[in-house]
Amino acid sequence: MSTIKDVARLAKVSIATVSRVVNNSTSVSEKTRINVQKAMLTLNYYPDANARALSQQTTNTIGIVVADVSDPFFGAMVSAVEKVAYQTGNFLLIGNGYHNEQQERNAILQLIEHRCSSLVVHAKMLTDQELTKLMQQVPGMVLINRILVGFEHRCIALDDRYGSNLAVRHLIQNGHKNIGYLCSNHSISDAHDRLQGYKDGLQEHAIAFEDVNIAFSSPDESGGEQAMMTLLERNCQITAIACYNDSMAAGAMSVLYDNDIKIPVDISVIGFDDMPIARYLYPKLTTIRYPLQSMSQQAAQLALALAKGQDIPQNTINIFTPTLTKRYSVQNLGSV
Amino acid sequence: MSTIKDVARLAKVSIATVSRVVNNSTSVSEKTRINVQKAMLTLNYYPDANARALSQQTTNTIGIVVADVSDPFFGAMVSAVEKVAYQTGNFLLIGNGYHNEQQERNAILQLIEHRCSSLVVHAKMLTDQELTKLMQQVPGMVLINRILVGFEHRCIALDDRYGSNLAVRHLIQNGHKNIGYLCSNHSISDAHDRLQGYKDGLQEHAIAFEDVNIAFSSPDESGGEQAMMTLLERNCQITAIACYNDSMAAGAMSVLYDNDIKIPVDISVIGFDDMPIARYLYPKLTTIRYPLQSMSQQAAQLALALAKGQDIPQNTINIFTPTLTKRYSVQNLGSV
Repeated sequence: MSTIKDVARLAKVSIATVSRVVNNSTSVSEKTRINVQKAMLTLNYYPDANARALSQQTTNTIGIVVADVSDPFFGAMVSAVEKVAYQTGNFLLIGNGYHNEQQERNAILQLIEHRCSSLVVHAKMLTDQELTKLMQQVPGMVLINRILVGFEHRCIALDDRYGSNLAVRHLIQNGHKNIGYLCSNHSISDAHDRLQGYKDGLQEHAIAFEDVNIAFSSPDESGGEQAMMTLLERNCQITAIACYNDSMAAGAMSVLYDNDIKIPVDISVIGFDDMPIARYLYPKLTTIRYPLQSMSQQAAQLALALAKGQDIPQNTINIFTPTLTKRYSVQNLGSV
Repeated sequence: MSTIKDVARLAKVSIATVSRVVNNSTSVSEKTRINVQKAMLTLNYYPDANARALSQQTTNTIGIVVADVSDPFFGAMVSAVEKVAYQTGNFLLIGNGYHNEQQERNAILQLIEHRCSSLVVHAKMLTDQELTKLMQQVPGMVLINRILVGFEHRCIALDDRYGSNLAVRHLIQNGHKNIGYLCSNHSISDAHDRLQGYKDGLQEHAIAFEDVNIAFSSPDESGGEQAMMTLLERNCQITAIACYNDSMAAGAMSVLYDNDIKIPVDISVIGFDDMPIARYLYPKLTTIRYPLQSMSQQAAQLALALAKGQDIPQNTINIFTPTLTKRYSVQNLGSV
């Protein structure tokens, strides 16, 4: 069996250098790293990362829990955290919680058992009580997209309610009064807050809230199709719809086209999140921007700092403010 | 410090049951699992997964390497493999290779050092020689989207060339002769094979291949925009374009709309992959279906079987055949 000495000899470097490559240290040149890794490959030398973790009682691993990595929203979150991991010589472990209490618990426990000292957790179904316990036990754990009372400084979230208010305000400023809302049927704070923001927007302008103008469905394209069909069936006299997210907006737009209802001439549409799809819908979707990349990066940096017992990075923002991104899916009724 | 005995006592179960929960065994009822995990949480008992891996010299972990998990294509691949992992009581470790030789090498080595005995690897930049060495050393390693000579039975891939041929054939059958092609500028087999399939399609119908009808760019929405602009600037007399993938098609369609060129009346568009976005573009995109979910699941099942020294599952297909999904972005010129 080959040893670290054999690798050092073949790669013509010191044992310390091989050790730095194995530990994923950023202080090794790219050329040396490739050289050492090729020697490892030739000699079939793969030091056990689990043994290393055990002896050091820590790992160079950041853990992240998201709802579902195949959802582009969470894919973008993972990618942003992975960039921080890569830059800091860390590896990324990912768990999916699927907005399910038990799967969220499973995912977090597995990451803790794998001794990830830094954790970025998106968990919406676990109780405050259980999360509080976990936050107390794992100093490098940070919550994203949720504010836990008592741990506000270790949470990074978006002001969802304000974002949705902003969307409705934009529609009203463009002369719309009969405004529908396609709401997520997930029982999570994002859904409640965004619905509340829609109601706030109406109330600000003394427009009565009508139950009949709201439809609930899953927060994806097919959910948007279903919710839009529901509103059309009810024959609501709406001139605009605000959507829980861009995916629902995409689904709604496809149903409107199928029914020969023109966007934005007949109905205006506004999304939420500003995911890449928003720019490639027709017409390009006006939406509320979720600064997902900045938020995810800050969460990762915060988790790394806390795990090392360092101070919270100075530039950390705990509650981000969404902004309006104007494109072509909202009609100004005054200008018609 | 709490022990496994304390957990068993608090949860009112046997020590063997606690051990089964910790090992993620599928033979424990959901109720018992929750009960035990809550006791672990209360007692701050998190057995070291790395120690377990070290003593068993294996882990209940499948490793996957993709180009970039934030790309919806790879997100869907990871999600399919994760479903197999979840059903079989395994955990998933993910590495990104970013279509970069050194990052692909890094990602694979890290997974091996973490003692993932099952590996599903999407690596396009590493040489055949290096991959051959790795395949020899890791019996549970499977390649997805690449055929490595000598290891064909451990590779799962798509017939890209045929898929692209099929796309062009569909356009020609609808009366198109001047057909543009938006090609990926990544130097990977997918790009070469799909371009070759386009050329095959033209040749089958004795249509001359013209360099001027091809534009290269990155295989995403903005790449599709750029490539489409290039073709428009050249003033090619094309009536249809075939695209490397659906993302490039989405970008191209947005440029066509900006220029008041109607789809499919003025120009027909056909995609590749059949990603979710294809159904929400306007008009809905005709495209070539990539059976990504089946392929990824089979790759994961194959890797698990090989790692255990079992026979290759009977239903394993090594080269999948793409199919045409007709929607509304292709105009029949004969019917105009």
